[in-house]
Amino acid sequence: MRNLRLDIAYDGEPYCGWQVQPNGLTVQQVLTETWKKITQEDVVPIASGRTDSGVHALRQPVAIETNMTLTLDAVQRALNAELPPSIRVLDVAEAASGFDPVRHAKRKLYRYVVHDGPVGDVHLSRLCWKVRSRLDVDAMNLAARRLEGTHDFRSFETEWPNRASSVRTVSFCRVGRIGDFVSIDVEANGFLYNMVRAIAGTLVEVGRGVRAPESIETLLRGGNRSQAGPTAPAQGLFLVRVDYPASTGDPDPAGSNEEGRE
Amino acid sequence: MRNLRLDIAYDGEPYCGWQVQPNGLTVQQVLTETWKKITQEDVVPIASGRTDSGVHALRQPVAIETNMTLTLDAVQRALNAELPPSIRVLDVAEAASGFDPVRHAKRKLYRYVVHDGPVGDVHLSRLCWKVRSRLDVDAMNLAARRLEGTHDFRSFETEWPNRASSVRTVSFCRVGRIGDFVSIDVEANGFLYNMVRAIAGTLVEVGRGVRAPESIETLLRGGNRSQAGPTAPAQGLFLVRVDYPASTGDPDPAGSNEEGRE
Repeated sequence: MRNLRLDIAYDGEPYCGWQVQPNGLTVQQVLTETWKKITQEDVVPIASGRTDSGVHALRQPVAIETNMTLTLDAVQRALNAELPPSIRVLDVAEAASGFDPVRHAKRKLYRYVVHDGPVGDVHLSRLCWKVRSRLDVDAMNLAARRLEGTHDFRSFETEWPNRASSVRTVSFCRVGRIGDFVSIDVEANGFLYNMVRAIAGTLVEVGRGVRAPESIETLLRGGNRSQAGPTAPAQGLFLVRVDYPASTGDPDPAGSNEEGRE
Repeated sequence: MRNLRLDIAYDGEPYCGWQVQPNGLTVQQVLTETWKKITQEDVVPIASGRTDSGVHALRQPVAIETNMTLTLDAVQRALNAELPPSIRVLDVAEAASGFDPVRHAKRKLYRYVVHDGPVGDVHLSRLCWKVRSRLDVDAMNLAARRLEGTHDFRSFETEWPNRASSVRTVSFCRVGRIGDFVSIDVEANGFLYNMVRAIAGTLVEVGRGVRAPESIETLLRGGNRSQAGPTAPAQGLFLVRVDYPASTGDPDPAGSNEEGRE
């Protein structure tokens, strides 16, 4: 049996997230049905993690165990010919046997995009959170730096009592601006439910001047979700990249050459 | 009577172009109806030029003669509150009396966007022309330079016999690449029907290696539309900017300080 790794991109708007569910179309369902159409084979594609309804992925690694004998190139071409334009297969590779995109993930990078111009963007409004006040990116960065490191992030988790531990290591949290777009990049070894969207909602409050950057420490210590900012809307959230150890066959050097970063 | 200049942006996809027509929703119609809703006044917004069905505008100047007494800021806010997100008012200014956005236009800049990556972009496929072969941007630029200057552009015009003259001056024609996106910028003192889309279709043939950059001279001399490349699809075309002389009150220095460029 082959274990294939597909890296896929998707526009989250038409989908109820990644994982198959009874009440709406999901990316996993479309991929499963398209695979069946091409190969007559039933598979269960496993992604690095679920994404919520409306969340986008620029590169989501997916593992598929298959008996299919097509070449990697033929798999990619056949899938892209049949999938809707909102889902694209960027790469197909043979993964190490036993490669598990969930368990082996070392780090993920998410980007949250906010638009704070006086007038919305006619082309990109579906891909960002439009806020009314101009954001202070320097203040947001002061707050973002305070999120870096190993902390209990339960104040940034929706429904936190469900997990054994809400301690995670954020290796990178930075805010940048290009014109009227403000991007919030968060890289961590794991994410709690709605964690990036709660971080984005909180950093936007800092950017609006209604929350001090220094308050992040109190927030982390308090462990109380209601003290943090709102959960930012899904449409501004992008899964950018997932890094794996070199032993899984990850072709991306960012995933294999920076062991010291965590 | 006031003469207002509105600079608007629009996503062309939902509209049958700028100009009111019987068989489909247009940007002019939406703007006219929105104005009426706010002011109870019937106006005829005049744009710098028509854009075709599906063509986008990043900044389209529009003149409106009005008796309405709202401040400029209030006009902008009221319109943006009522217009759909696919149309935004970027600026509102008092124009010189008699300002005519068609007749006074000195230069327009259009951008045509092509995507030539192996895999389409999930978020931006609506905003570009997807081509299969990797394009040679250097060759395209050699061809683009040959379009600069004053020429008879009838070989790049659909239905050319309708005009008195098809001589235009292209002040700038350049091709650039950002990743898998290739942009073709064409600046001229006026454009013939479908001219930028015919130029894009022709330059893409050069980029694919099926047409030599040197052939542009023969093409211009021949004056035969059928010898040029295909008309590229509307969805990749953006009106970027229209320049006016300083005497019209144009706030944009690019429109007023470069008289020597034409």
